[in-house]
Amino acid sequence: MSDSPGTLAAFRHFREKMNEAILNAGNVNIKRFFALDTRSYDAGALDVKTKELLGLVASMVLRCDDCITYHLVRCREERVTDDEFFDAFSVALVVGGSIVIPHLRRAVARLEELPAA
Amino acid sequence: MSDSPGTLAAFRHFREKMNEAILNAGNVNIKRFFALDTRSYDAGALDVKTKELLGLVASMVLRCDDCITYHLVRCREERVTDDEFFDAFSVALVVGGSIVIPHLRRAVARLEELPAA
Amino acid sequence: MSDSPGTLAAFRHFREKMNEAILNAGNVNIKRFFALDTRSYDAGALDVKTKELLGLVASMVLRCDDCITYHLVRCREERVTDDEFFDAFSVALVVGGSIVIPHLRRAVARLEELPAA
Amino acid sequence: MSDSPGTLAAFRHFREKMNEAILNAGNVNIKRFFALDTRSYDAGALDVKTKELLGLVASMVLRCDDCITYHLVRCREERVTDDEFFDAFSVALVVGGSIVIPHLRRAVARLEELPAA
Amino acid sequence: MSDSPGTLAAFRHFREKMNEAILNAGNVNIKRFFALDTRSYDAGALDVKTKELLGLVASMVLRCDDCITYHLVRCREERVTDDEFFDAFSVALVVGGSIVIPHLRRAVARLEELPAA
Amino acid sequence: MSDSPGTLAAFRHFREKMNEAILNAGNVNIKRFFALDTRSYDAGALDVKTKELLGLVASMVLRCDDCITYHLVRCREERVTDDEFFDAFSVALVVGGSIVIPHLRRAVARLEELPAA
Repeated sequence: MSDSPGTLAAFRHFREKMNEAILNAGNVNIKRFFALDTRSYDAGALDVKTKELLGLVASMVLRCDDCITYHLVRCREERVTDDEFFDAFSVALVVGGSIVIPHLRRAVARLEELPAA
Repeated sequence: MSDSPGTLAAFRHFREKMNEAILNAGNVNIKRFFALDTRSYDAGALDVKTKELLGLVASMVLRCDDCITYHLVRCREERVTDDEFFDAFSVALVVGGSIVIPHLRRAVARLEELPAA
Repeated sequence: MSDSPGTLAAFRHFREKMNEAILNAGNVNIKRFFALDTRSYDAGALDVKTKELLGLVASMVLRCDDCITYHLVRCREERVTDDEFFDAFSVALVVGGSIVIPHLRRAVARLEELPAA
Repeated sequence: MSDSPGTLAAFRHFREKMNEAILNAGNVNIKRFFALDTRSYDAGALDVKTKELLGLVASMVLRCDDCITYHLVRCREERVTDDEFFDAFSVALVVGGSIVIPHLRRAVARLEELPAA
Repeated sequence: MSDSPGTLAAFRHFREKMNEAILNAGNVNIKRFFALDTRSYDAGALDVKTKELLGLVASMVLRCDDCITYHLVRCREERVTDDEFFDAFSVALVVGGSIVIPHLRRAVARLEELPAA
Repeated sequence: MSDSPGTLAAFRHFREKMNEAILNAGNVNIKRFFALDTRSYDAGALDVKTKELLGLVASMVLRCDDCITYHLVRCREERVTDDEFFDAFSVALVVGGSIVIPHLRRAVARLEELPAA
């Protein structure tokens, strides 16, 4: 398993291609899950930015690189700044421990691919 | 393992007694970790309420009841409303899956012990 | 945390009471998740018994006692025999390791509360 | 960490080479574990197909790509159909949550490398 | 779920009773796993004390209270001192993060039930 | 995700580059965590070799390849022999189950890159 992540473009290409294959397979419960997953980050009592930060930190402590990449992109679109990202990372780190560090490294490398806030 | 949680008072009593025993044991790295844990939720680029919500959702997806209780109490002190709690719960649920549900039940039972926002 | 589980009746009472409180809170995404969770075990290409066994083993390796109890009850209703249960337990044990053992103990204690297959 | 998986041939080559190195190292408890791991999927009260599906779903919720690949191959050898796979995936998804999705993508990509049922 | 642990006597009674029930159920792979679990802590290239400390820290980062209790007892029998325990706890804490803390509290409470080293 | 690991040199290069980027970002709590992480393996009541072995086994059961690589290197520097490594691996395997095996394969491949003890 390589320590440095692939490019964001490669991530997006594979994600879109496979999401399409999954949704085309016709399993209705999986389709419902994907729809619910999207809706869960819509604005509600909490705003979109806060919910994307929640998704980011949840993904970090559960150590899912692809989920982290997805939420980094969405957070940036919601104008999360670098200092806010590192503040969120520090919570993930203290809750999840040093095993979060390799994912933090890849998250910071990924962040460098994204446009500034 | 009992499904319903003990009282908040029992949680607090045991937590304080044992934290004291741990800090009195004299291991400097454990003391540093406890201090860092507390500081990680101080206001920074993100405000305290957001950071406590991050800690709450991280605790839910990692399924740590005592951590959930701690952050529920702190979130309430920061004036998190019931609707905001359930919005955060919904993110934890979709990220972490149905195994989060038993912890959600105990979180909601715990919430009923706390004063209204 | 107590090693022996509470009674099945206590589990059911708390589960039903809190599920009602959760669904009454009015968060639509949480309601959708609960509905999807139920539908995921309906007969499809795989029959109900197989899907409940999948839910049971998933719950064991993720070490969620309340989830295990729920699926033990549903599996028994689907006429899973004791030998079939232990065969499923053996897969959970080898995949998940010795940390599954305390949950296996509680599962077997729970099984003794259920009617024979 | 790359999002798309390597080839099945590369997986098999590395797996066989390293399993041989591990077993040649002469640690008797590790040898016993490997033997027990194999035997755990033999036909018993449950048939081989059901046990391989249990192994697959356990691997998905624990998010182990190499374990998923192994059980996908074995399930296919036991004539698991695409619809049955997606039914099993839907259980893994609802139990384990959205963090299972990246592994589901890689599982479906892997499935496309396998012969039809 | 209660925050404070039950007594060591209750743990031992339930553990022995259920282990007996499990082994009497006649599943040969489960029996083999239990035997292998015991043998894995026998003296080898590493001594028993070191292996029990490895089991303890593994149990802490995986957050299994009953496993922690078991290894605390065995470590004490191998003359692990309080300072050595806290040194091991500090490694578990930094690797596993603040979600280990509730288990650390219960471990220290349990330690108070054991005879001095 | 590739099953075979990248080279040790690539791991070190990426690790050092990203650690520098993380520490330069100026978040004081993250800096404190990194400092505490290093200090946690200093000699105390337990010696460095034992603490590095604890870190290794914790990393294996939590299935963090980069953490495993780091502790393999440090253990080797502390003169851990091949037989001692495999003894530690056997504890990780029985505690964490067969999902540890892919990480064990990569650990053994990594070990072949390191100088003999």
